[in-house]
Amino acid sequence: MGVPRPRIGILGDGQLGRMLTLAALPLGLDVRIVSSGSAASTCPFLGRRPPLDGDDPQQLDALARAVDVVTVESENVRLDWLEALAARVTVLPSPAAVGVAQDRVREKEALQAHGIATAQWRQVDDAPGLHGAVRDLGFPLVLKTRRFGYDGKGQRWLRAEADVAAVPESFLARGLIAEAAVPFTRELSLVCTRSGAGDVAFWPLVENVHRGGILVRTEAPARDVAPPVEAALRAAVARMLDGWSYVGTFALELFDTPTGVVANEMAPRVHNTGHWTQAGTATCQFANHVRAVAGLPIDACAEVAPTVMLNVIGGVPDARALLAIPGVSLHLYGKEPRPGRKLGHVNVLLDRAGAQGLASAGALVDTALRLAEEPGDPPT
Amino acid sequence: MGVPRPRIGILGDGQLGRMLTLAALPLGLDVRIVSSGSAASTCPFLGRRPPLDGDDPQQLDALARAVDVVTVESENVRLDWLEALAARVTVLPSPAAVGVAQDRVREKEALQAHGIATAQWRQVDDAPGLHGAVRDLGFPLVLKTRRFGYDGKGQRWLRAEADVAAVPESFLARGLIAEAAVPFTRELSLVCTRSGAGDVAFWPLVENVHRGGILVRTEAPARDVAPPVEAALRAAVARMLDGWSYVGTFALELFDTPTGVVANEMAPRVHNTGHWTQAGTATCQFANHVRAVAGLPIDACAEVAPTVMLNVIGGVPDARALLAIPGVSLHLYGKEPRPGRKLGHVNVLLDRAGAQGLASAGALVDTALRLAEEPGDPPT
Repeated sequence: MGVPRPRIGILGDGQLGRMLTLAALPLGLDVRIVSSGSAASTCPFLGRRPPLDGDDPQQLDALARAVDVVTVESENVRLDWLEALAARVTVLPSPAAVGVAQDRVREKEALQAHGIATAQWRQVDDAPGLHGAVRDLGFPLVLKTRRFGYDGKGQRWLRAEADVAAVPESFLARGLIAEAAVPFTRELSLVCTRSGAGDVAFWPLVENVHRGGILVRTEAPARDVAPPVEAALRAAVARMLDGWSYVGTFALELFDTPTGVVANEMAPRVHNTGHWTQAGTATCQFANHVRAVAGLPIDACAEVAPTVMLNVIGGVPDARALLAIPGVSLHLYGKEPRPGRKLGHVNVLLDRAGAQGLASAGALVDTALRLAEEPGDPPT
Repeated sequence: MGVPRPRIGILGDGQLGRMLTLAALPLGLDVRIVSSGSAASTCPFLGRRPPLDGDDPQQLDALARAVDVVTVESENVRLDWLEALAARVTVLPSPAAVGVAQDRVREKEALQAHGIATAQWRQVDDAPGLHGAVRDLGFPLVLKTRRFGYDGKGQRWLRAEADVAAVPESFLARGLIAEAAVPFTRELSLVCTRSGAGDVAFWPLVENVHRGGILVRTEAPARDVAPPVEAALRAAVARMLDGWSYVGTFALELFDTPTGVVANEMAPRVHNTGHWTQAGTATCQFANHVRAVAGLPIDACAEVAPTVMLNVIGGVPDARALLAIPGVSLHLYGKEPRPGRKLGHVNVLLDRAGAQGLASAGALVDTALRLAEEPGDPPT
């Protein structure tokens, strides 16, 4: 009957792996989620397994025997493990694409090669390189580790010479990139899925708000985006993905500036700024990713209901009060509350909730965040 | 923080239990699915467990300790087990409501008590009762077992005296109801969810097509329903559910006739004719059921996108071809193909698929069904 039924392995058992799994199960696909070892499992319903140790050839061998396709919930996965797996099974997106997204220098080069503007940047490997970057880019600039940064971690702002002198040798030794500050008016992102057949389904540009380096809110679609700007960006991203024969969901974070959009960073995976698609489109980013890596057609996602996504951070809001608001859905990840931790998200369908409903949902989420950050027990 | 986090036990591990589980996990709820023993588990992702044997007090005790709320995927569950559980934990909907829906005689009485028309009927326990029913109702009539019938099983049509003589004693001994034939123009159903707070969220009346007693297609909303008819039906159902303090999703199958709608049977649970809500409404019947039994507010489901649900029966259609049609989503239950077996369903969003897309999806589903029913291996 021509039903592809690849067994899918997901590297990473955080919330993205969990939501990928929840999207794969209705398609009748066999999913095996593998802890990458970084986080406590949020997928107890899938059973607890020891984290993958890809340095153990037997473990890699067992995984390669158990699945047909491997995909990732994070670009921060050991590339040598991915490559070893790719010699045995299909890895989607390819290790090559994941490798580019792992490295802020290669990422910038790839974006620029496809005509996508980025901040001015310099590779920084040592003190002379740092001084050269400061001379070329001026203040303020941001130093970032080339690899394994997320949610603002591994970043350091330099605003004056004193900040330069204070950069620890140990930080420099990690391999850095210096980026000139981008005077942005707002943050945007573009999320899309590319299928194995080469179709690319784009969701509209969305507007994002970060606080302390952590996404707190996505508004979809972004307001006041000039159609030619969006069309040009889509065309450039599609060319870049075509060049990698990329398969799966892909995200590009952007700054909007008075002179145009500037790419910040890419993610070769489902993305927090795409969570709104669970409510605002017929097929969400998780379902399209699963379809793509399973060799199935993706959905075009052309029609969109205006939606606001609010991240649930630190503390869990009152579900009774939240769900009493029309058009609100709640997604919790099964993680223990802790200040600063992403525990879930709320999707608000604007046409149903109205401005008042959105404000109420925002207040409930904010209250939980504040209570989590205050010392002592929250009031009961 | 006021987040109700009841541990939920679901009796029954068929596709309805599976989809209830998939709807509960995003809410961060702890779900324990319990095989009722009738079917092979379709929830391998939840782990295989021995089926519940409620005659074993230790097993019931273990379940009562493990969960806070018990709900059911089927009315065909041992009522004494439910009642034993209800003495220990919350059972929703209540055993009393499930008990009514288990028995076609009590079901008819409840419907009529709330002003909902039914077929003319007689209770039949023996041969004299059968002859009395034939005299009162005339031919044709249908004999049904009072209990444990589904998908047309346990039914026998009588069209002439010869059919009456041929009714086996063993069938009569099961406890029957005789129903006069209803000259219907189409089949409809009403699906709704009642919350613990007493709110009832109604989806619109939908039109259903059965073949050989098995649902093959639901069209939502049903065309040409007079608003006063729908309003009166909703009011009557709400009164009936209020009377039971019913909590959860509820379905009522109906016949449409030239003289009005006539109730056929009820289901105290999520229902096959509500599967379209996964695509056509913001909150599906599974999510609303889970919210209700977890003590959370339900969604009003007022806005609906026209949707057709096609049951996947016997064989699995070509997922690549199906998902290439815009607006199509596929839900498979993880069951082994077998002629006549419900293996999944397809939801088609009409505004996206168009008439041509719907026809293509229907042809793919029909081809799989026919291939499953033909002897020999299907062509590859």
